[in-house]
Amino acid sequence: MTGSLSIAGLGPGDAALVTPEVSAALACATDVLGYAPYVARVPAREGVRLHPSDNRMELQRAGEALRLASEGRDVVMVSSGDPGVFAMAAAVFEALESAPQWREVSIRVLPGITAMLAAAARAGAPLGHDFCAISLSDNLKPWDLIELRLLAAAGAGFVIALYNPISKARPWQLGRAFECLAAILPGTTPVIFGRAAGRPDERIDVHLLAEVDAQKADMATCIIIGSPETRIIRRGDKPSLVYTPRSASGSKA
Amino acid sequence: MTGSLSIAGLGPGDAALVTPEVSAALACATDVLGYAPYVARVPAREGVRLHPSDNRMELQRAGEALRLASEGRDVVMVSSGDPGVFAMAAAVFEALESAPQWREVSIRVLPGITAMLAAAARAGAPLGHDFCAISLSDNLKPWDLIELRLLAAAGAGFVIALYNPISKARPWQLGRAFECLAAILPGTTPVIFGRAAGRPDERIDVHLLAEVDAQKADMATCIIIGSPETRIIRRGDKPSLVYTPRSASGSKA
Repeated sequence: MTGSLSIAGLGPGDAALVTPEVSAALACATDVLGYAPYVARVPAREGVRLHPSDNRMELQRAGEALRLASEGRDVVMVSSGDPGVFAMAAAVFEALESAPQWREVSIRVLPGITAMLAAAARAGAPLGHDFCAISLSDNLKPWDLIELRLLAAAGAGFVIALYNPISKARPWQLGRAFECLAAILPGTTPVIFGRAAGRPDERIDVHLLAEVDAQKADMATCIIIGSPETRIIRRGDKPSLVYTPRSASGSKA
Repeated sequence: MTGSLSIAGLGPGDAALVTPEVSAALACATDVLGYAPYVARVPAREGVRLHPSDNRMELQRAGEALRLASEGRDVVMVSSGDPGVFAMAAAVFEALESAPQWREVSIRVLPGITAMLAAAARAGAPLGHDFCAISLSDNLKPWDLIELRLLAAAGAGFVIALYNPISKARPWQLGRAFECLAAILPGTTPVIFGRAAGRPDERIDVHLLAEVDAQKADMATCIIIGSPETRIIRRGDKPSLVYTPRSASGSKA
């Protein structure tokens, strides 16, 4: 019985951004589990069982993956982006911690291109200096803590990437986040809406914090809010480039 | 004259972590520029000119890449990890901003697996909730700003990834960073030293903040300091797993 569980990141959606390590794991998997739209991205092949599941089933899906691996199957759990960034790896380890019978299962995490890296690349280099990533979902933490983190990060000069910015069940949070940030950041701070980076329906928009409209984002949008150092290079009819210089104010260089 | 410049991330070192997008760009490049050890990773091929350069030549290298592209060459600038995270993309845009004659050059940024994602994957899922990335180099920003950011991030509950933690010219900064963090984080906070993740000389060590020794890190180490929520799963003779749960304290879930 030598089953295994690989928790793999498919990147933002473009097959050209899937690492060879992940492709190799999928090529010899007996079972692939994950949220249905991500499982649908896995290349079809005889001899692999696909187990698509619903979005809200993380812990149940994690337990199922551990059970199959413990029975000797070679299981790949797929996530969008990187599995360790607001995705399935933490859910698998939560399940593992509550189920000691699976501690012997061989587990690997295979990294992927997470949404903020893909969106940043399309926009320029907005993450060129110190930055943070915050999930705006208040399903798993209180909203007050999210505001505290937004203010701490902006106050200390971090560029901020927002994951899970908005959904039907969470319609006001992104607008409120922009209000918080506008109280301490210049209105000219660049705000990038990076939607579906690397996919055919990709859309990258650059706004200024003073005039940004939260309702133009959706669940598939990764939002990057610059620091006071972040700059926009205008290039006529080419898309503008947004970048954060390598040095920060008060620099000795 | 239709030259181009692709600023490409080679990932942490393992060829299995180089995206197909980057491999394709390298396969049709006429010129490859970068820090010599990164250029050395590029597969040899007839018809490509390699331009390795020294570590401290970022702006000069960036200008050279823009010049070659403006002359019609298909140039790839290689970085380790992701080119937009403490790497060459910001340097290229700094050079571009100061040289309007190159604004028409076609430029793409090709994302890569940045060091913290590779190190995190090898250790478990320490970046499973809100996190930040800080360069510990005080060559390009004052040390006081680094301390301010460390304290702001730890105080607000972010997991912290440290890039450029230590070097011969910067021997004391990492130890001082640990001292700052130990003043506000529990001594039991996990600290991961992820060295050369994905390479043959990979080494992943998990320490506790109260007993961590900065001198065990080197330039190739990415350091991840947990939040008070971060947990360690002990697994007998298998390596321990470190993860940060998806929910944060005060959670409503």
